[in-house]
Amino acid sequence: MSDLIKNSIRAIHDYPKAGIVFRDITPLLADGAAFKATIDAFVQRYSDKNLTKIVGMEARGFIFGTALAYALGIGFVPLRKPGKLPSKTLSQSYALEYGEDALEMHVDALSADDHVLVIDDLLATGGTVLAAIKLIKQTDASVEECAFVITLKDLPGAQRLQEASIPYYTLCEF
Amino acid sequence: MSDLIKNSIRAIHDYPKAGIVFRDITPLLADGAAFKATIDAFVQRYSDKNLTKIVGMEARGFIFGTALAYALGIGFVPLRKPGKLPSKTLSQSYALEYGEDALEMHVDALSADDHVLVIDDLLATGGTVLAAIKLIKQTDASVEECAFVITLKDLPGAQRLQEASIPYYTLCEF
Repeated sequence: MSDLIKNSIRAIHDYPKAGIVFRDITPLLADGAAFKATIDAFVQRYSDKNLTKIVGMEARGFIFGTALAYALGIGFVPLRKPGKLPSKTLSQSYALEYGEDALEMHVDALSADDHVLVIDDLLATGGTVLAAIKLIKQTDASVEECAFVITLKDLPGAQRLQEASIPYYTLCEF
Repeated sequence: MSDLIKNSIRAIHDYPKAGIVFRDITPLLADGAAFKATIDAFVQRYSDKNLTKIVGMEARGFIFGTALAYALGIGFVPLRKPGKLPSKTLSQSYALEYGEDALEMHVDALSADDHVLVIDDLLATGGTVLAAIKLIKQTDASVEECAFVITLKDLPGAQRLQEASIPYYTLCEF
């Protein structure tokens, strides 16, 4: 893990509500060297893993996933909020603190031959990434690993991925 | 313009409503060679233009903007829907077919020294990109050009950019 990456992430106190420290990646994105170091750290880990697709969740997963897909020369599959994808979709709902949400993927986006990396900016409770994994498994594609820029180590996301036997990688912990 | 890029964009008829042909970029993203050709076409145009930042609009502007920022080794600034950015923001509203929406940017995201490229997947009426330009101009940064993968040539976006004296570039027209 590079200090350049971790030091480019800004702490916003009491956002979105009192007592929460939000980890803001926008200074990392704005710094060309820090953003390049972030993507290159993932390239170093994944360049020889025979991945066929990067899967990223709307919207911040798009930021890291597409740059990594470009760097690796492979395709990118977006998982979107309901109603955003124009063709036939698969859907997977998941629980939020209050209520639920869902992720959708085009039904023809992946096949059983695909070996995918799931990427997002942040691992917290793991609800979103576990929904993404269930969605991908509807297509019989293999999830090789889940990667994050940030993991919030006081929240159960990493443990829930371990319980689901999904390998996981993070660049920073807070 | 490469046929590989244009041929990877799928036409979805009668979406989101009858009579509309939606241009679906997800097959282009899923094809590693087509996605790489798309970003490399922008790299070829912009590598010697002394840009300091790429600005992209939520959510599909993130897809092309971040990969291009990585390839050029410069920073990326996300413009987001209201309430998504955690620090102090500037805001710019714009008209939709029914009602209005707004884009937000962190106040410290750009400065008067910045030379920016605004990128999005698609140019249609130009409402979003013109709002993005107004938002950027609140910071005194220079908008050097606006770039799109797709332009819908029967809609007035390109003409509105020309009237605003903003250079514009597109990879494909439909």
